Amino acid sequence: MSQNYNAAMLALGQAPSVIRETFEYGNRRAKEIGRENVFDFSLGNPSVPTPQSVQDTICRLVNTCDPIALHGYTSAIGAESVRAAIAANLNERFDARLSAADLYMTCGAAASLTITLHAILNPEDECMTFAPFFPEYRVFAEKTGATFTVIPADTDSFQMNLEAFEKMISEKTKAVIINTPNNPTGVVYTEENLNALCKLLREKSAAYGHPIYLIADEPYRELVYDDSTVVPYLTKLYDNTFVCYSYSKSLSLPGDRIGYIVVSPKMEDNRTMYAAVCGAGRSLGFVCAPSMMQQVIAENLGITADLNVYRKNRDLLYNALTEYGFRCIYPDGAFYLFVQALEDDAKAFCQKAREMELLLVPSDSFGCEGFVRLSYCVSTEMIERSLPAFKKLAESYR
Amino acid sequence: MSQNYNAAMLALGQAPSVIRETFEYGNRRAKEIGRENVFDFSLGNPSVPTPQSVQDTICRLVNTCDPIALHGYTSAIGAESVRAAIAANLNERFDARLSAADLYMTCGAAASLTITLHAILNPEDECMTFAPFFPEYRVFAEKTGATFTVIPADTDSFQMNLEAFEKMISEKTKAVIINTPNNPTGVVYTEENLNALCKLLREKSAAYGHPIYLIADEPYRELVYDDSTVVPYLTKLYDNTFVCYSYSKSLSLPGDRIGYIVVSPKMEDNRTMYAAVCGAGRSLGFVCAPSMMQQVIAENLGITADLNVYRKNRDLLYNALTEYGFRCIYPDGAFYLFVQALEDDAKAFCQKAREMELLLVPSDSFGCEGFVRLSYCVSTEMIERSLPAFKKLAESYR
Repeated sequence: MSQNYNAAMLALGQAPSVIRETFEYGNRRAKEIGRENVFDFSLGNPSVPTPQSVQDTICRLVNTCDPIALHGYTSAIGAESVRAAIAANLNERFDARLSAADLYMTCGAAASLTITLHAILNPEDECMTFAPFFPEYRVFAEKTGATFTVIPADTDSFQMNLEAFEKMISEKTKAVIINTPNNPTGVVYTEENLNALCKLLREKSAAYGHPIYLIADEPYRELVYDDSTVVPYLTKLYDNTFVCYSYSKSLSLPGDRIGYIVVSPKMEDNRTMYAAVCGAGRSLGFVCAPSMMQQVIAENLGITADLNVYRKNRDLLYNALTEYGFRCIYPDGAFYLFVQALEDDAKAFCQKAREMELLLVPSDSFGCEGFVRLSYCVSTEMIERSLPAFKKLAESYR
Repeated sequence: MSQNYNAAMLALGQAPSVIRETFEYGNRRAKEIGRENVFDFSLGNPSVPTPQSVQDTICRLVNTCDPIALHGYTSAIGAESVRAAIAANLNERFDARLSAADLYMTCGAAASLTITLHAILNPEDECMTFAPFFPEYRVFAEKTGATFTVIPADTDSFQMNLEAFEKMISEKTKAVIINTPNNPTGVVYTEENLNALCKLLREKSAAYGHPIYLIADEPYRELVYDDSTVVPYLTKLYDNTFVCYSYSKSLSLPGDRIGYIVVSPKMEDNRTMYAAVCGAGRSLGFVCAPSMMQQVIAENLGITADLNVYRKNRDLLYNALTEYGFRCIYPDGAFYLFVQALEDDAKAFCQKAREMELLLVPSDSFGCEGFVRLSYCVSTEMIERSLPAFKKLAESYR
């Protein structure tokens, strides 16, 4: 007889999350010394409110729509009109050449990823990603029964390490997850780096005689701070691409759980792969994406929360920390700063930082040692108040 | 090398749903002969609007709350205050003796079920249910790798067939899903029937030396039409119970995806099992239940949509059909009527009904042959208009 529970699920439920542990320490500490004296850079939650137009749309729909339709099921794949509107917006912005039939609405980024992974992976397959990476990728991929392999980081540029990738890819490789702008580094992969990856994927697909799918996890697509930085639309660079998107960051709606999957129309056996996505969504229990939020999104396409706040925070923090002698990866996007720890052990460095009331996340859980992640989706004022502590931290290592 | 897709997911995505096929036939037929001449009883979607208080709460929260908090992540298990409010409501109504720590907020009933099943099942386990049953139970259970076994119906009473259950249960049986009020019959299991099931589960758990979990799928709990009918709260009858709930039907909010799991505080190793639920939710991609809807629900506890419409529909349809000579199971709850087909082959009977523009669902997909399901969550006026067609259908078999 098996155990009373599923052991893998229990292990996940009991696994301590460093990020959450840090956040909870911060709450306890705030009670002891006052919230204004704790500098919590642990959580990646939007700190900018959703646009007023989103708020207005919610109330307008509630006051004007048939409630049975507004709060009723859409079709499992999402409302046709919503999918058509999103496709049109992506076509306008990126010349993406999508139609409503290429989109599948989801309950946010995590759902986009798990549905895609379950649609394509079998237990004998391998899914790869590039370090440093969002740690839930491993949880999501391993739930399918497939193997999850991490390609070591290029700790100079934090672009994808394609040299290591070429050595590690094998006939078992079925999917590669990429995340640009990247959590936890904030780095935007260059077009050159992306093109080189896609070229390799094409060559290896041909050599192994089966498609290798590219899964682009893009919740930070709109969070790019330098006008010259381009985040290419991946379906244009590589045919066998799934794009996983969420409005959590761009519209500051993480709690409302709304996003989508794009199954590239140029994908081999596109309709078959789309059907596999539908089957995976059904079997995991995602019946339809939140229906009122589908309508809200469709009426707020092309709008974002005020992302200038993040740009300002990025500049403030990056400039100060480099001035104090920290080595930081320059972040073009997302809302994270990846900073080299001032000793080999990033966890010990984070403990030292705590003595100065700075709450940072060690990079180990992102698959890359010796760094710390700072989330700068916090108030600008807290960053300003925290700077003397960072200065003191740097000095303590001299 | 495996196939390009996961074959099980593709099969699910491509599987024709009789219910959906019937619904789509109805839409095509409506274009041909006019919507008013098609009598569509295929879909189980609420036909009563959500209460005005729900609509008002949404706008009030949008207009008064901090948008970052309202649209932000709650903790993965749901907001503490929301879980506490729901527990208090269940305690008041059912003396359920729950606390916030026993609840896990979900993205609706399907999520409640998949998370619970993945938390407890291993591939060597068996999950059982009683026919007739909601067909997605099989899809959800088999995704865990476990075996799914259907206990044949007692076609006289449509109570649980415990005689068959006692013969079929085995050491492999880990979980039993029950659904009362029942989809597709509308039958409410009697307290006697439930007590007998729980007694058997206790005996078999002792005999096999491991707990057998009862999973109570309860989206129709509040949809009960006879004041004397009691739907006992299952955690009071059996310790090792999970309650899976959704507000889809009681508040007519199926599209907004909000529900919960109760892990009974009396369950063996309660905290371990709760942690397994957390791990399963995490690995399937359910990060947190829709946050604004969590708050909306917490402010509308004890309220339901106007369920009297369903009672009226039930009485109208049941009385007319039995008068015409149909054998119908008297439905105490939900919004379904389960009617014996007038020939052995329920599919052929549904085809015959289509000639009279009556769209019914054959019972085969519910694990029970020879019946049809009518969803009476439709307008009363459509039912009135449909009655001559039912009369004609009955006469055509004389």
